[in-house]
Amino acid sequence: MGNLKIRVYNLIRDDDENGLAANILDGFIISLVVLNIISIMIDTSALPTFLREFFFITEMISVIVFTLEYVLRLWTCTYINPNEKPLKVRIRYMFSFMATVDLLSILPFYLPFLIPSTLVIFRSLRLMRILRLFKLNRYIDSLKIIALVFKRKKHQLVSCLFILAILILVSSVLIYDVERSAQPDKFKDVASGMWVIITTITTVGYGDVYPVTVPGRVLCAITLILGAASLAIPSGIISAGFVEISNETNKSNKGKNACDKKICPHCGKQIFRNIE
Amino acid sequence: MGNLKIRVYNLIRDDDENGLAANILDGFIISLVVLNIISIMIDTSALPTFLREFFFITEMISVIVFTLEYVLRLWTCTYINPNEKPLKVRIRYMFSFMATVDLLSILPFYLPFLIPSTLVIFRSLRLMRILRLFKLNRYIDSLKIIALVFKRKKHQLVSCLFILAILILVSSVLIYDVERSAQPDKFKDVASGMWVIITTITTVGYGDVYPVTVPGRVLCAITLILGAASLAIPSGIISAGFVEISNETNKSNKGKNACDKKICPHCGKQIFRNIE
Amino acid sequence: MGNLKIRVYNLIRDDDENGLAANILDGFIISLVVLNIISIMIDTSALPTFLREFFFITEMISVIVFTLEYVLRLWTCTYINPNEKPLKVRIRYMFSFMATVDLLSILPFYLPFLIPSTLVIFRSLRLMRILRLFKLNRYIDSLKIIALVFKRKKHQLVSCLFILAILILVSSVLIYDVERSAQPDKFKDVASGMWVIITTITTVGYGDVYPVTVPGRVLCAITLILGAASLAIPSGIISAGFVEISNETNKSNKGKNACDKKICPHCGKQIFRNIE
Amino acid sequence: MGNLKIRVYNLIRDDDENGLAANILDGFIISLVVLNIISIMIDTSALPTFLREFFFITEMISVIVFTLEYVLRLWTCTYINPNEKPLKVRIRYMFSFMATVDLLSILPFYLPFLIPSTLVIFRSLRLMRILRLFKLNRYIDSLKIIALVFKRKKHQLVSCLFILAILILVSSVLIYDVERSAQPDKFKDVASGMWVIITTITTVGYGDVYPVTVPGRVLCAITLILGAASLAIPSGIISAGFVEISNETNKSNKGKNACDKKICPHCGKQIFRNIE
Repeated sequence: MGNLKIRVYNLIRDDDENGLAANILDGFIISLVVLNIISIMIDTSALPTFLREFFFITEMISVIVFTLEYVLRLWTCTYINPNEKPLKVRIRYMFSFMATVDLLSILPFYLPFLIPSTLVIFRSLRLMRILRLFKLNRYIDSLKIIALVFKRKKHQLVSCLFILAILILVSSVLIYDVERSAQPDKFKDVASGMWVIITTITTVGYGDVYPVTVPGRVLCAITLILGAASLAIPSGIISAGFVEISNETNKSNKGKNACDKKICPHCGKQIFRNIE
Repeated sequence: MGNLKIRVYNLIRDDDENGLAANILDGFIISLVVLNIISIMIDTSALPTFLREFFFITEMISVIVFTLEYVLRLWTCTYINPNEKPLKVRIRYMFSFMATVDLLSILPFYLPFLIPSTLVIFRSLRLMRILRLFKLNRYIDSLKIIALVFKRKKHQLVSCLFILAILILVSSVLIYDVERSAQPDKFKDVASGMWVIITTITTVGYGDVYPVTVPGRVLCAITLILGAASLAIPSGIISAGFVEISNETNKSNKGKNACDKKICPHCGKQIFRNIE
Repeated sequence: MGNLKIRVYNLIRDDDENGLAANILDGFIISLVVLNIISIMIDTSALPTFLREFFFITEMISVIVFTLEYVLRLWTCTYINPNEKPLKVRIRYMFSFMATVDLLSILPFYLPFLIPSTLVIFRSLRLMRILRLFKLNRYIDSLKIIALVFKRKKHQLVSCLFILAILILVSSVLIYDVERSAQPDKFKDVASGMWVIITTITTVGYGDVYPVTVPGRVLCAITLILGAASLAIPSGIISAGFVEISNETNKSNKGKNACDKKICPHCGKQIFRNIE
Repeated sequence: MGNLKIRVYNLIRDDDENGLAANILDGFIISLVVLNIISIMIDTSALPTFLREFFFITEMISVIVFTLEYVLRLWTCTYINPNEKPLKVRIRYMFSFMATVDLLSILPFYLPFLIPSTLVIFRSLRLMRILRLFKLNRYIDSLKIIALVFKRKKHQLVSCLFILAILILVSSVLIYDVERSAQPDKFKDVASGMWVIITTITTVGYGDVYPVTVPGRVLCAITLILGAASLAIPSGIISAGFVEISNETNKSNKGKNACDKKICPHCGKQIFRNIE
């Protein structure tokens, strides 16, 4: 029994990279996730019956597999901390981030049996399954680096958001005052002006509303230039964050291994040189 | 009296981080600012009466609180320089950046009592209150870093603006000459061409005006590619500025504390190693 | 015969930079490639007969030249490995990347003689000829650097794609739920919502579909801000990658030559200083 | 006479920063340039007569001043190389970049007197006057840095252009094949498809043409993601270029002066520390 638990644990734990069976299981679950996403995307479209049935069966299999996986994880999670009380470990595991994702991805299927009305938000919850893709070990490190950059530069990025917010707010009020008389139906309130400014500053420009007066156009042009600058700041901050981490990683690498990675300036390939 | 002044000063001074009372006051003022901004955004919309009344009361409370705060700041600002003449310190404080912001954010309320006509610009002045969010200590440092990058790279960024301006001006004249005959109503003058070029180069593309002739489209395509390059330059300059400052900060950090921050290349977490 | 083979080999091999004849041949082939691309671009347009004939003749010459070149390359490729079996070398060469490109660029011309129906995809294959431009030696190094950056940052970039995918999927489902009732003809299914979100998040904003309800606009605005952040991450990652390689190249350069490249901070020009 | 020549030379030479008279002259010429640009922008608009006259007079003054300046520069340019033949120096000066700009900016005024027909291109030539703004010394250094970045990264940036070109060409042919049957009037030829792809890939999205079929939308979405990546590459290259130069400048600065610039990690201000 304990032996079976270990084998199941090794099969389903997130950071498994070495076993063939685990890799096959990984591939199977990734396929299910992708099929699920496609299913969500098109389940509102007019589809031929056989496709509908195919996606319905996929959904059934997904729910069964994911439920089974969730139960097995809950069962085997006691393996890491054998000295603690199983119930305590299991409850702690249930409230971990990844277990919550797993639960949220199967819950929308079971809820209609428990609660009569099916809320629209349930469809979004099924999308949670995509988060499983992040469980693949190779991407967890990269995500940690990205998260670290954002954590470090948090205050600078929030400051940029503040600058952007002020720019949007001031421009919205001004564009409303300037364009109101020319387009009373499109600039009903400051909130409408804000919609124009947001679609302008992010350079979307749907074309549903746009300035027609000369001062409105001048204002939009100035907002655009200032907005482009405001959006270049976070880009620069994030770049600096990645450069910082890459420098730090290189430095700590140097101390560790005696092999100094270098790039040949001619061919761009790495030169491996052993420092004796 | 002097004791009360010190306590009031500690309660309202900008860089306060330690007191619970000051934190509560901070939270209260931030809530007022956010409510004020929402109020400005929607005071032109058709709203139910109770919401109107809610925002009117918020406005009243804001003005009272901000006026009181301004008066108290003016009263307590003598605390830092007790040796100077109080009047001199107060006048100097009144013309400081933050005091001007504070004054501008309450002035629009009082002005109608003094001057009969209410100008449209007053609404924008009320937006000044958002600047108070920057007073929070943690963002002041970040804003200083951003400002430093812009200050250092000022000349390079202005050069980019010049390049962009030349590109816009030349393209505007050319697109006007090229498209004028095909769309005489939309390309009435060079200024109209400039509007097209600005919305093109910043990739907004509202869709109100666009080139229809082949030479016009070729011109726009070339302008777009050149414009994308021109906008990548300031982005690169700002990135380099942030990298510079991050390098300098790291260097000056190294001399100071004996704890060398490093990033584990595997998990992306910091390794704290004491250099004995 | 062997002598002729060497001369032909030197004339047509990809990394030739020294011979005048090879340079002229390079220029001739580049001209043919550019003419071919123009030909593909406009062969569906209504053209005067003499232009049609000109491009038809260009096409003929191109096919003849490129076929001849391919045959000659296949003949001379045995020159580098004279000790191996010619057939083996030739078959290996045929399946190399550049030989495949060469073959694909002439195949669409011959296929209609072999297979009756001409598929639409053949036109795209003719575009393969543009890849020949990359064979120019000076760009191969640059492409290798770019490829190296992408290879190194592969996992981080894929993580960004995952984040972007999740953002797009969740937003698509939400916008569909929010806008469905207001615009039932434009938001027929989640896939339609996805089209809106993709054109919004990449800031294209064609203007064919856009949110009209207040929650839809708020959702789009939030998606835009998050999307701009998501797109700034890969930009930062790629920047860091190029900075890394540039640092490494500088370091390995320093050891090699005793001439230390420096930039005068005043004029921006390089200072060449010999370290004796 | 020689004395007058020196004084005139010092007054009008480009890199003058110390003299008050030269600064006033600089300001006067900049004002003329700005007025000229405004004049070009609006000379096609319907204007009140007094404004037309104002700009006509400005134009007259500009031409007189710029002609006088050109003649004086030609006269005084012999001052730097007094040992060479004056005529030789003057002819060499006439073909220098800045003298050509100066000549091109006044030529359009005189040409109608020489050649009867006034070509449309003349208006663009008048825009050349904006290049004079770059003559201001403080921006010349920045422009040199920007130019140096582009020069160094030339091959990498051209490679990016190649990648972008291939992406545009292949997508254009595919979108034409895919959308032709659904929108025969908008997708008449591959060139039309190219216009759609260019406005899509640069995220302009005017909204005059957009894909309506499902394969067309999928193709556009893929092109957008690939295009965003392609545009992030040059941005990263340029960033790395600026970081490189900033590193090199810092290094060569360190050797020069004993004052080590550092940034306080707390307040973001520079710490000036003398290394004794």
